[in-house]
Amino acid sequence: MKLSAIVGFLAAVPTVLAVWPLPQTFDQGSQNTGVHSINIITEGKTSPIVRGAISRYHSIVNSESFLAPADYDRETLKTSGMFAGLVVCVESNDEQLDLDTDESYTIDVPVSGKATLKAKTPYGALRGLETFSQLVTSNGYAKVIASTPIHIADAPTYSHRGLHLDTARNFYSLKSIFRTLDAMSYNKMNVFHWHIVDAQAWPVESKTFPELQEKGAYSAQMSYSYADVKQVIQYAKERGIRVIPEFDVPGHTYIVGTAFPELMSCMNKQPDWDQYAAEPPSGQLNIVKPESVEFANKIIDEYTKLFTDDIFHVGGDEVNRKCWEEDPDVKAYLKDHPNEDVESLLVDWYAKVHEHLATTGKHAYTWEETLFHSNYTPPKDTIIQTWIDGESVPKTVSKGYRVVSSNSDSYYLDCGHGAWLPNFDGNSWCDPFKTWMHVYNYDVAANVTDAKELELILGTEVALWSEQSDETVVDSRLWPRAAAMAETAWTGKKDASGKVRTTEEVASRLHEQRFRMVGRGINAEPLQPLWCARNPGACNLP
Amino acid sequence: MKLSAIVGFLAAVPTVLAVWPLPQTFDQGSQNTGVHSINIITEGKTSPIVRGAISRYHSIVNSESFLAPADYDRETLKTSGMFAGLVVCVESNDEQLDLDTDESYTIDVPVSGKATLKAKTPYGALRGLETFSQLVTSNGYAKVIASTPIHIADAPTYSHRGLHLDTARNFYSLKSIFRTLDAMSYNKMNVFHWHIVDAQAWPVESKTFPELQEKGAYSAQMSYSYADVKQVIQYAKERGIRVIPEFDVPGHTYIVGTAFPELMSCMNKQPDWDQYAAEPPSGQLNIVKPESVEFANKIIDEYTKLFTDDIFHVGGDEVNRKCWEEDPDVKAYLKDHPNEDVESLLVDWYAKVHEHLATTGKHAYTWEETLFHSNYTPPKDTIIQTWIDGESVPKTVSKGYRVVSSNSDSYYLDCGHGAWLPNFDGNSWCDPFKTWMHVYNYDVAANVTDAKELELILGTEVALWSEQSDETVVDSRLWPRAAAMAETAWTGKKDASGKVRTTEEVASRLHEQRFRMVGRGINAEPLQPLWCARNPGACNLP
Repeated sequence: MKLSAIVGFLAAVPTVLAVWPLPQTFDQGSQNTGVHSINIITEGKTSPIVRGAISRYHSIVNSESFLAPADYDRETLKTSGMFAGLVVCVESNDEQLDLDTDESYTIDVPVSGKATLKAKTPYGALRGLETFSQLVTSNGYAKVIASTPIHIADAPTYSHRGLHLDTARNFYSLKSIFRTLDAMSYNKMNVFHWHIVDAQAWPVESKTFPELQEKGAYSAQMSYSYADVKQVIQYAKERGIRVIPEFDVPGHTYIVGTAFPELMSCMNKQPDWDQYAAEPPSGQLNIVKPESVEFANKIIDEYTKLFTDDIFHVGGDEVNRKCWEEDPDVKAYLKDHPNEDVESLLVDWYAKVHEHLATTGKHAYTWEETLFHSNYTPPKDTIIQTWIDGESVPKTVSKGYRVVSSNSDSYYLDCGHGAWLPNFDGNSWCDPFKTWMHVYNYDVAANVTDAKELELILGTEVALWSEQSDETVVDSRLWPRAAAMAETAWTGKKDASGKVRTTEEVASRLHEQRFRMVGRGINAEPLQPLWCARNPGACNLP
Repeated sequence: MKLSAIVGFLAAVPTVLAVWPLPQTFDQGSQNTGVHSINIITEGKTSPIVRGAISRYHSIVNSESFLAPADYDRETLKTSGMFAGLVVCVESNDEQLDLDTDESYTIDVPVSGKATLKAKTPYGALRGLETFSQLVTSNGYAKVIASTPIHIADAPTYSHRGLHLDTARNFYSLKSIFRTLDAMSYNKMNVFHWHIVDAQAWPVESKTFPELQEKGAYSAQMSYSYADVKQVIQYAKERGIRVIPEFDVPGHTYIVGTAFPELMSCMNKQPDWDQYAAEPPSGQLNIVKPESVEFANKIIDEYTKLFTDDIFHVGGDEVNRKCWEEDPDVKAYLKDHPNEDVESLLVDWYAKVHEHLATTGKHAYTWEETLFHSNYTPPKDTIIQTWIDGESVPKTVSKGYRVVSSNSDSYYLDCGHGAWLPNFDGNSWCDPFKTWMHVYNYDVAANVTDAKELELILGTEVALWSEQSDETVVDSRLWPRAAAMAETAWTGKKDASGKVRTTEEVASRLHEQRFRMVGRGINAEPLQPLWCARNPGACNLP
C-alpha cells in the first residue's frame, strides 16, 4: 500500500526532463509551457556559425515529434503559459575553436513568454541550442516544454570529448561522416579524431606524393580529396567539433610502401606477419634511412596545412622492433655503428619528427607507446592518448603530460566481435563487447588525486577501429554507446552531492537519447526490449 | 621465385566462380561468355511463383554491376561466345511448399547460345535463378559469365534452413521483414520462424481475443494485422520460404496477463523476477486452470488458420516451476489433490495442448525443454528445436524425434552484446559473439552416426532474439553470419571427397556474398578490412 501511494505521488510530480548529457545545473518548476511555433532569434550581431545552428535547430525542433519511451501513455499535459520564442545572446563572435574554447551557456524558460539562451562564444550557443531542442516534446497534436520555469547553467567537465574513426581499414563515405558529426553534436562531443590512413589504405589526396592516394586508396571513389577534407572540417566546425587528423608513423605504414618500397622495412611478411606487426600487412618506415624522416616530415608539412586544428596526431603506436632488427639496411648500419641500436635509432627518429612538427606551430598528439614503450622523451606540450590499460592515465599525468584516454577495455567500440582472421574460430584480444554500462562506468580520473595532475586530464575518446566496421554499420557500432562516454565527459562522473552517478539512474535518459537519435536519422542500437524502456526499473538485476 | 611463378600461373587460370551457398556439383570451363542483355524465358506453362521470380531476377541481374573484392583489379575478360538467354524449364507447377518440396535444379551455360535451368518444382527454379544471378559479373562496361561452359547440378543437404526472428521484444516493420526474406532468398534459406509474440508484447491482431493486440502491442502501428501476416506469408512463398509462427505457451506469456490476468501465475514479480522467469517480466499461464488450456487452444485454433504452413510452433521453453509452486490456486488445488504436483499438472497441460494441436492437422514444433525438461512425451511427429548445447541433437534423435538445431553457442546471433540489465556491468550468459567462422564450423550432425538418426535431422536455424536488436540493426546482426549457416545447411559440411570444408577456404566466397548483399540493399556487416578481402590468404593466422 505504501509503495503504491509513493508511485501515485511520483506520477503526479511534473515530468522530469531528460536532457543528455545532463546539464550541470538544472532547476525546473511544475508548470508546462505550450509551444505553438518554434521561433529562435538572436540579439545583436551573431556569427555565421550561430546563424547556421539556429536554422538547423529550428528545423529539428519543428519536425521532431518526440516523446520519451517511458511517457508513451502520457496524457496531454495542461499548459499554463505559452512559449514566445527563444532569444539567443552570444557575447563574442570569435569562431576560434580549440582546447580553450568556452562552451558554457545558460537557458531560462519562463512559464510564459520569451526564453533566453546566453553564451560567451558561438560554441556555447550551439551546446545550448542542442539542450533547448531536447526540452521540447510532443503533446498530443502540439508541442510542450514541460516543468517550467526552467533554469539551466551548463559547461563541460572536460574540454576534449572525442570520437576516433578509422577510415583506412574500411572506407566511410562523406555522407556517413557527416551523419556521425551530426550525432556527435547531439551529444555535445567536440573532437573528431580522424584516423584517416593506416597500413591497409591511404584514402586521402596528397599533393606532395600523389602516388600515395593513387596506389594506396582502395579506389578513386573510396578516398577523400582536399575539397572533401575541407568540407568535413567545415561541417564539423559548424557543429563545434574540431577535426584532428592522425598520420601514424613509423608503424602502420605498409601502404606507403606500395608507392615507395625503398622507404620501408618488413613489407608484408607472409605467412608469419604476426612476428612483424599487430595485424597484417606488416611494414614500417625504415628508421635507418634519412629518406624516411624526410618523408614523414613532408607528410607533416602537407597535412598540417590542410588540417587547420592546432593539434596533429603522429601515431607512434605498436612499433615492432623485430621488423627493424632483421632489416638488411638497419643491420648493415648497426654493424658499422656498434654504439647504436634499434632503440637509439627509434629515439633519434622520433626526435626528428617531433622537432619538425614543432616548427609548424602544432602540438603533437601521440599514442602512449611513444612515451612509455621507447626511450624517447616527447616535448612537454605533447598530448598522450592512452589505450592500453587503466594505469596509463595516472602514469602519464605523473610524468607531467596532458592526457586523453581511449582505454581499450572501455572505449574501443569495435570490440566484442570476435576474431576476424578467417582461419581462426576464436575471440579477439579486445573482447568482450563494451556495453553502455561499461562505457559509462569508466572514470578517466580514477587513481589520480593530485590537483595539478587532474588538470592534465583533457578528456576522453571512444574509438571505432574498422577491421570489422564500415559505413554500413557505423551508426549502431557507435551509438548510443558513444553517448554514454559523452555524458561522463561533459557532465562528469558525480552529481552535485559528490555521489557517482549510476547506470541504473541514467538508463531512462539514455533510452530517450537513443530514441531521439533514431528519430533524427541515426540508427543507434536498442538497449533493451521496449517494454523495459517503458517500465523504468522493471528490468534491473535484483 | 617459385612462389611468384605459382602466383603467375594461378592468375592465368580462369576465374573461379563464387556462388554462395556452393552448389553440389559445379563444373566449369575456361572460356568466357559475354552478356549483352539478360533475357530469361520459360518453356511451357509456368506457375506465377516462377514468373514472379524471373521478373525479380531479371531486374537484379540487369541492375547489378558486381565484381568480387578479390577481382578488383581484374582486367576485362576476353569472351569467346555470347549469352543468348536463359531458358527455364519446370516440370511441375505445383506450388505446395513444405518439408518434402524438391528444391533441386540444374544449370547449363554453354560458351555461346542459350543457357538452361531445369527444375522439378517452382522452388527448384527459384534456387537456380539465384545461382544464375551470381554467375553474372561485371566486365568493364559490360557483363560476363566467366569460366564457361558451366554445368551445375544442385540440391539442398537439409530441408529446413531457417531464420528465427523475435518480433516481440522489439518491433520490426514489414519493410524490414521483407528485406530479411529477400536476404534469405539470396542464401537459399527456406524457413522464416516468426517468433511473433513473447512476454513483452503481442504485436499481432487476434480476432478471438482482440484485447491481446489492444493491450499487448506496443502500439497500433507496432503490430501486424491479418492482412500484414498474409502479405508476409505470400512474400515469403514467392521466395520459396515457409513461415512457421511461434505462439509460446505456457511460459513467456506475461503479456497475455495484461489482457487476461485471471489466466496467469506470477505476473511481473518485482524486484526478484529472476526467481520466476529467465528475464523480466515474469508470468506464465496458470496450468491449474482449465481456462488457460482453453485459451491456448483457442489461440491454436485461430492462428493455425491464419498461418498456412503445416508446422506450428508452440514454444514450451524456459518454464519456471517456482512460478506455479507459489501460485495460490495451484497450491490450493495440490492441497486437495495430494497425488498430483506441478510436474504432473504440466504434463497434463502439455498433453491437452498437443492433442488439440493434432486435431488441426498440424505438426507440433517445440523447444527442446518440452521433451527433456518435463515428464511429457510429445507425439512422435513433433519436431524438436534444440538450443541448449551440443548434446541436444544426438539426445533428440536417439529418442526418435525429428530435430532442428538452433544451438545457442553457435546460432544465437544476438549474443556477444553483453548484459542488458542497466544496473549490471557484465557479460551475458550467451556471450561471446558468434563469429561467422564459429557459425560455419558448427555441425548439426556431429556425434550422430546411425543412418536412421541422421535422417531425423531436418536442418538448422539461426536465431535473432531481440532484447538488444530491432529493425535499425537487423541487417548487420543477421548478415553475413546467417549466410554462413545457410551454406552448411544447403551444401553440407563436406566436399565431394569427404573433407570438411574449412573457413579458410570459403572466406573469399563469403566476402563476395557479403558485398553482393550490400549491393542488393542488405547492410551486411564487413568481415575484414577490404585489403584482406582483396588479398585472400594474406590475413590468415599463421
